[in-house]
Amino acid sequence: MKKLLFFLLISVSALAQIDRVEPPFWWNDMTHTDLQILFYGKNIALNEVTVSNGISIKSVQKTENPNYLFVTIDTKNVPAQDLVFTFKNGKKSFTQSYVLKSRKENSRFRKSFDSSDVIYLIMSDRFANGNPNNDSNDKLFEKANRSNKDGRHGGDIEGMIKNLDYIQSLGATAVWPTPLCEDNDERGSYHTYGQSDVYKIDARFGTNEDYLRLSAELHRRGMKNIMDYVTNHWGYKHWMMNDLPTRDWLHQWPEFTQSNFRMTTQFDSNASQSDYQKCADGWFVKSMPDLNQSNPLVLNYLIQNAIWWIEYADLDGFRVDTYSYNDKEGIAKWTKAITDEYPNFNIVGEVWMHDQAQMAYWQKDSKIGAIQSYNSYLPSVMDFTLHDAINGGVFNEDKASWDSGIIKLYENFANDFLYPNINNILVFAENHDTNRFNQAYGSDFKKYQMAMTLIATIRGIPQIYYGSEIGMAGDKGVGDGDIRRDFPGGWQGDTNNAFTKEGRTKFQNEFYDFTAKLFNWRKSKEVIHTGKTTQYVPENNVYVHFRYNEKESVMVILNNSDEKQTLKTARFKENIKKLSIGNDVLSGQRFDLTNDLTLEPKSALILELTQRPVR
Amino acid sequence: MKKLLFFLLISVSALAQIDRVEPPFWWNDMTHTDLQILFYGKNIALNEVTVSNGISIKSVQKTENPNYLFVTIDTKNVPAQDLVFTFKNGKKSFTQSYVLKSRKENSRFRKSFDSSDVIYLIMSDRFANGNPNNDSNDKLFEKANRSNKDGRHGGDIEGMIKNLDYIQSLGATAVWPTPLCEDNDERGSYHTYGQSDVYKIDARFGTNEDYLRLSAELHRRGMKNIMDYVTNHWGYKHWMMNDLPTRDWLHQWPEFTQSNFRMTTQFDSNASQSDYQKCADGWFVKSMPDLNQSNPLVLNYLIQNAIWWIEYADLDGFRVDTYSYNDKEGIAKWTKAITDEYPNFNIVGEVWMHDQAQMAYWQKDSKIGAIQSYNSYLPSVMDFTLHDAINGGVFNEDKASWDSGIIKLYENFANDFLYPNINNILVFAENHDTNRFNQAYGSDFKKYQMAMTLIATIRGIPQIYYGSEIGMAGDKGVGDGDIRRDFPGGWQGDTNNAFTKEGRTKFQNEFYDFTAKLFNWRKSKEVIHTGKTTQYVPENNVYVHFRYNEKESVMVILNNSDEKQTLKTARFKENIKKLSIGNDVLSGQRFDLTNDLTLEPKSALILELTQRPVR
Repeated sequence: MKKLLFFLLISVSALAQIDRVEPPFWWNDMTHTDLQILFYGKNIALNEVTVSNGISIKSVQKTENPNYLFVTIDTKNVPAQDLVFTFKNGKKSFTQSYVLKSRKENSRFRKSFDSSDVIYLIMSDRFANGNPNNDSNDKLFEKANRSNKDGRHGGDIEGMIKNLDYIQSLGATAVWPTPLCEDNDERGSYHTYGQSDVYKIDARFGTNEDYLRLSAELHRRGMKNIMDYVTNHWGYKHWMMNDLPTRDWLHQWPEFTQSNFRMTTQFDSNASQSDYQKCADGWFVKSMPDLNQSNPLVLNYLIQNAIWWIEYADLDGFRVDTYSYNDKEGIAKWTKAITDEYPNFNIVGEVWMHDQAQMAYWQKDSKIGAIQSYNSYLPSVMDFTLHDAINGGVFNEDKASWDSGIIKLYENFANDFLYPNINNILVFAENHDTNRFNQAYGSDFKKYQMAMTLIATIRGIPQIYYGSEIGMAGDKGVGDGDIRRDFPGGWQGDTNNAFTKEGRTKFQNEFYDFTAKLFNWRKSKEVIHTGKTTQYVPENNVYVHFRYNEKESVMVILNNSDEKQTLKTARFKENIKKLSIGNDVLSGQRFDLTNDLTLEPKSALILELTQRPVR
Repeated sequence: MKKLLFFLLISVSALAQIDRVEPPFWWNDMTHTDLQILFYGKNIALNEVTVSNGISIKSVQKTENPNYLFVTIDTKNVPAQDLVFTFKNGKKSFTQSYVLKSRKENSRFRKSFDSSDVIYLIMSDRFANGNPNNDSNDKLFEKANRSNKDGRHGGDIEGMIKNLDYIQSLGATAVWPTPLCEDNDERGSYHTYGQSDVYKIDARFGTNEDYLRLSAELHRRGMKNIMDYVTNHWGYKHWMMNDLPTRDWLHQWPEFTQSNFRMTTQFDSNASQSDYQKCADGWFVKSMPDLNQSNPLVLNYLIQNAIWWIEYADLDGFRVDTYSYNDKEGIAKWTKAITDEYPNFNIVGEVWMHDQAQMAYWQKDSKIGAIQSYNSYLPSVMDFTLHDAINGGVFNEDKASWDSGIIKLYENFANDFLYPNINNILVFAENHDTNRFNQAYGSDFKKYQMAMTLIATIRGIPQIYYGSEIGMAGDKGVGDGDIRRDFPGGWQGDTNNAFTKEGRTKFQNEFYDFTAKLFNWRKSKEVIHTGKTTQYVPENNVYVHFRYNEKESVMVILNNSDEKQTLKTARFKENIKKLSIGNDVLSGQRFDLTNDLTLEPKSALILELTQRPVR
């Protein structure tokens, strides 16, 4: 009896050897049928492993660290069930159950975001504090401190869910919250780009279940959930960091080496190898260990983690952080794996460059990438050169010269042909890493109107940034905290509640009403989503572009001059044709396009064209 | 007898009907065997035409203007001879002889300029007046007036020939004089881009025979003659202008319409048709009628004229003016026809854009052009973005930031992969249409050294601009005349003769000696002509690049900082390898590359690398 008890105790302690299993569960019926499960526990690698029900183990991979075991099983045609893994070391053995769930029907062919959408970007910690009880957490270092611009303020998933009606009222159809997985850095963790557990929502944002609820609530409204995914690095508090599976799980350097951030080394045929390595393998910052995607175990870990979130949280897309800092071949494999599993899934990569050819390089099936036989498989990139023009003050350039004024917008779109898929490109005036639009333009409503009119009507997928729709400003020069101010009304006791018409100031309502009108109009406008574009060389600092398809035609006019301008409509006859009536979406005013138009200084018109009715 | 005399008189007067025959003669044994001869004379089209010796007339093309007849004969296998064309109208007839010369042996496979060359660009009217007797001409409107900055100054071909030793002494191996064909504009004709006769050297520059002599004298020195060819437009005094062959010989507009100069409309997939048309078909200026290359007669006229000059004047290359303003398809056909006839012939087009993808679009076999199924067949373009950086003041940026200072050079070369043939691209600090380098940089010798060191060592074909090698300045802001000042010593009575060591000032000799040393060194350096390039991300405003092949390695260092810098050589080990001795081409100094280098402020080094000798 004593002996038996002793034996039982041993078994129990052996079972406790497993500290982590990742992915924590999986699904049957996946296209990607190989499933590589990471088992982590003290000396786990000393065990032999088998699995129940005659499931085939394709490989058991050990690393230099005996605390890891990577077990690959083939899930092809395996029904959903609770699997049991048995670990055996001599006479000792223990088991670990593992759930293979039923995959949701049609999960593979889920729709994703596209140019019919408008994305609302939220700095998750700074939007709304829906649950004040989770602002700090015993197990997590950084506690809420709203008085610290770089601290945690308590924004959370509950805050987003509570304000989805507000977001929807703006005409936004998709939400991109900055990362929500756990980031247990000791300070500055609020932005959550240095993650410590990529299978778990940060407790200060809520629970994994809360995140599922966010998806469900979005879907109930016909809206979409875009996850901000980080492949390039984790946080230094990631649970693996003290006990790496392999030394080359990370890009290791003799001493801390920061990236040189010269992303051109990714394709520069003259680049030195050492510069390239420093760009791609150097660390973003000291607290963000750089992942080595050229290690197949790392790559597969990241692929499965991404798929796990899509499947688990019913996601509608990814935004991928620092895309072009990744190992170039590795990130292409990652992207291909995701889109092989979900052929319609959209992924927009942060490729922050200042040259269209360099950005177009990174879009799937790029002819420019093909010069170097490179295909990233990345469906979507961001129109950072448009942002350059907007952020560079184009709307302050009241007088135009050969290369200043609104010509900068025109010139940006002149290179559209370089992109393999111009409709699948994010257009934005700002994001959480840039100066706020309203900061750059002194919260000038007319300039805001011009910028948003452009963003809403040009090809691509508009992305707006929380708070700007109520005129929020924020100075990048002061620090990132300032461009990520709390949304007024998101915290109990906020005196200004900008979530409601009554709560908004007159100034805020002016911005809000315009934004909501504009993007709600856009929602149903196929001609904007997928129509062709014609643009005209600006004259007198006036930019005119048309969007058209077989059914509809829209003429957009931006007068960037600080004077009234007369627009000679005859010049646009190839687009106007017989559609000589223009109904302005914004003012409701009706214009006769057989006559010249008088444009107010710093103004925008969106004219839906129709034929003059026959009398 | 009276009757016979009368008949003879008629015949003679009929013969006089032919005022022009173009091309004036041709060659046998051409690859391009169809020869289309333009006969111009009053009512010439009323005649029937035959040709001697059973030569086949392939077509006789009449136009709406009876004064023109375009007769195409097949010269295939036709020996050199004097052909006789007979024109017959009823009982009247007359003849016109036409010479088919023997083609020079190996003319087809003539070598052309390439990256082993250094091109010396001359503003023909402003370099040297070798023959003061031809400065003005009775038959040509504009007379010499050296006191007028925009007038004719008397520079000529004889002046070039007399100073070829000087040009050669600089290390230049090719000469590009601005156009030499007749330009009979009433004013501003000195630049000669508005030509009135494209088969005739302007009498104020000399004769066609003088131009042949220039070629011969260049070839005698192993040097090359590059003709500046204009396809886009002629001058309004061109002989055809008062009696066009067809109305659509030119791009006609209801009223004078200038080009909008927006060359992006050539490829912008969003461009309006009307903007595109205005760019390509609008006139450069009022005095330069825009040629319609989409008219096959015009196109063929331009092709034959170009071939005629190559064959006649034994040319080594073309520089083509305003290349990207031409009809896009037409100019591609023109370029293909020339290079079909002369497969090794190099042609560099003026594609003055500010974006590498846009410039690379125009180079032969461009993958970027291929996006739109476009192939210009143009072998060479100009590195205008490098010029942008140089002209934009990069060498004045003593302190570097993320995107200022010498990083601008690095970033330019980072896009080299976009060009299909990066060695066949002109590199230059200035030309006859830009601000003078020494103007922009206050004739700062150190900055000149840095710029020329770059131009001389980076991939591509260096092009230098007359006069800068003696420190000449000139302000584009004041007017084009100022950047095209007379070369001192080119005119009788010039007090300063910069063509000789003794005649040059100390200041001029400093510039000259450096330039001559640099480019003479380059002459034999295959490693510079065709070697590979490695460049390093600048640190502390210091730019380092290597040129290397299997035999040699050269390290070029530009310290753009206004302070001494220490260059840590360990960083460059992937290029230095065991070549730890660097011999500076400019100073003769020897550097030990196992130690760090101390760089003087605003300085350039060109180190030829060798292995430390074994003791």
